[in-house]
Amino acid sequence: MAAIEGFWAVVPAGGAGTRLWPLSRAGAPKFLLDLTGSGRTLLQATADRLGPLVGPRLVVVTGVRHAAAVAAQLPGLPAAQLMAEPSPRDSMAAIGWAAAVLEARDPSAVIGSFAADHLIGDQGAFEACVREAVEVARTGLVVTIGIEPTQAATGFGYLRAGQALAGQPTARTVEEFVEKPDAATAARYLAEGTYRWNAGMFVVRASLLLDLLHEGHPDLASGLRALAADPALLDRTWEGLTRIAIDHAIAEPAAAAGRVAVVPGTFAWDDVGDFASLAGLLPRPPGAGADAGPTVLGDAGLVTPVDCTGLVVPGSGRVVAVVGLDDVVVVDTPDALLVTTRERAQDVKAVVDALKAAGRTDLT
Amino acid sequence: MAAIEGFWAVVPAGGAGTRLWPLSRAGAPKFLLDLTGSGRTLLQATADRLGPLVGPRLVVVTGVRHAAAVAAQLPGLPAAQLMAEPSPRDSMAAIGWAAAVLEARDPSAVIGSFAADHLIGDQGAFEACVREAVEVARTGLVVTIGIEPTQAATGFGYLRAGQALAGQPTARTVEEFVEKPDAATAARYLAEGTYRWNAGMFVVRASLLLDLLHEGHPDLASGLRALAADPALLDRTWEGLTRIAIDHAIAEPAAAAGRVAVVPGTFAWDDVGDFASLAGLLPRPPGAGADAGPTVLGDAGLVTPVDCTGLVVPGSGRVVAVVGLDDVVVVDTPDALLVTTRERAQDVKAVVDALKAAGRTDLT
Repeated sequence: MAAIEGFWAVVPAGGAGTRLWPLSRAGAPKFLLDLTGSGRTLLQATADRLGPLVGPRLVVVTGVRHAAAVAAQLPGLPAAQLMAEPSPRDSMAAIGWAAAVLEARDPSAVIGSFAADHLIGDQGAFEACVREAVEVARTGLVVTIGIEPTQAATGFGYLRAGQALAGQPTARTVEEFVEKPDAATAARYLAEGTYRWNAGMFVVRASLLLDLLHEGHPDLASGLRALAADPALLDRTWEGLTRIAIDHAIAEPAAAAGRVAVVPGTFAWDDVGDFASLAGLLPRPPGAGADAGPTVLGDAGLVTPVDCTGLVVPGSGRVVAVVGLDDVVVVDTPDALLVTTRERAQDVKAVVDALKAAGRTDLT
Repeated sequence: MAAIEGFWAVVPAGGAGTRLWPLSRAGAPKFLLDLTGSGRTLLQATADRLGPLVGPRLVVVTGVRHAAAVAAQLPGLPAAQLMAEPSPRDSMAAIGWAAAVLEARDPSAVIGSFAADHLIGDQGAFEACVREAVEVARTGLVVTIGIEPTQAATGFGYLRAGQALAGQPTARTVEEFVEKPDAATAARYLAEGTYRWNAGMFVVRASLLLDLLHEGHPDLASGLRALAADPALLDRTWEGLTRIAIDHAIAEPAAAAGRVAVVPGTFAWDDVGDFASLAGLLPRPPGAGADAGPTVLGDAGLVTPVDCTGLVVPGSGRVVAVVGLDDVVVVDTPDALLVTTRERAQDVKAVVDALKAAGRTDLT
């Protein structure tokens, strides 16, 4: 199928992925890494996935320190479509800036925001969802793609779907967005069947996005539109922009106002938040059973496991031997080594905090 | 106190210490390593410990490939007292060769064999034991130093002590030597109170050692005495010598014949057989409680522990972060990394076997 006319993908490429340290660093954030051994980084895989939907209409918004790396990873991306933020101002400023630039270029443009560091399993199902989302967005709604939960995950935000939208194959209204739940609440969400994971994918007319933003945050909306009109304002005005997430600035108030729809996504999706998540996403060796040793990201020839399961990343060229540990996580890099468990994968952040506190910015 | 006239220490320096991989390698065996962070290798600490007892009368028997390293670590050792075996022929050939050379030099010489890679806690108690052992050896017995068990260890051989020897402060007869026991047997040995750990320390007149050897293995005894008389025979005859441990060749049959005595040793002793043993031997940081994080062998500034106990060896200069693991063992070296637990420390041998099978002799 052809790309969708007038539809632009906006890819905010930010966030260090602290819980994936020592693979991810401030200078080598998650989206620049090939975390699946596919030969493509998460950013490249995101661009690959969006290509059939948008053709050349891809905009990446990233921090100024990562702009050169993004350009190198996406050699076909025109310079005008690589927007470098002087500093992080959260997702609303990033996506809103792109929306303002695209609105100025094409007042009827529809944009879709897609994180640079998520994984998606079924390309065909993803494309079908986005195509429906664009159709619904053109009726004047904010549209999100809500992922069908496969487990009672506590690491994701959720949304609650309401009535079916007339005239659309699968879209429904969104009753509300909710924050990451505790385990009991997550179990209830899964059981009730009306909750979807909020994957941060928003499809909306650029002008509607900015108009909705203007209702709650007029200074921010005006600032972004002024910036689109005069790029020379960037260094002077960027630091003064309100720091807020798009969920709080747009999605939640618009849902309360009945202006958000959801297209349910039945494809596999993950934000690869930590090594436990990554371990679950990586392919197992062909024919490998549960006791076939750890999943290896990298050269399996470097790993010597004895009675061991979990995830091993041999990233320094050294041999890694693991004996008698289940669900272990071993990540070996040239200057830092992490040993933990899948259960404690969330707590890797504490290591990064400790290293920062010790002044080891070279390692974080 | 002065060194003991006519008493020679024989230090067989062999054995790779496979279960201490990747610190120990075929080319860097246990005895050449500083495993305690004291600044002295196990071999050097052994020589230091024996110095007050023997003065300059120290002989080291080692493999030809390690002779240069031994000489470098013991710069005061005369070349004539560094005996290089062309190949490993087990402990009887190593100690018997030294005995034959010393017998030729001094027919009344008493020798004591002391492994190059054991740790001993109380120098004063050790010296007192050896001095008594030499006295008893001069009465025409084989004397061993039997360590008072502090736990039901299954990793050591034992001996059973009998009657007190008349006229000696603490020495007793030895009823028998027994192999490494299972856990139930070890518990019984500990409860009975008459068993001692066989630390492989034998004190005996060199000529008696060779005469006893001649009773059971005349070819080996004759071969060693011939070698002492004519060192030029070494390359021609060494490979033909019987491969047998001194326990089987001398200690067990002599005990059965009532010709072995034991001086009980109440000092701390360990053969540092694996990382579990090493972890228990290393000093804790001052004031550190049980939850103070792992024991670190090396630069503690390189280790970032979060909810972790066990042993960490940061041996490559890299930062080592460990999160949420108890009794873990992490050994980081420039070309190989080991992750295991204290409980599974014995199984490190399986890694070395696997690497050898994979042809990675560079790493073993």
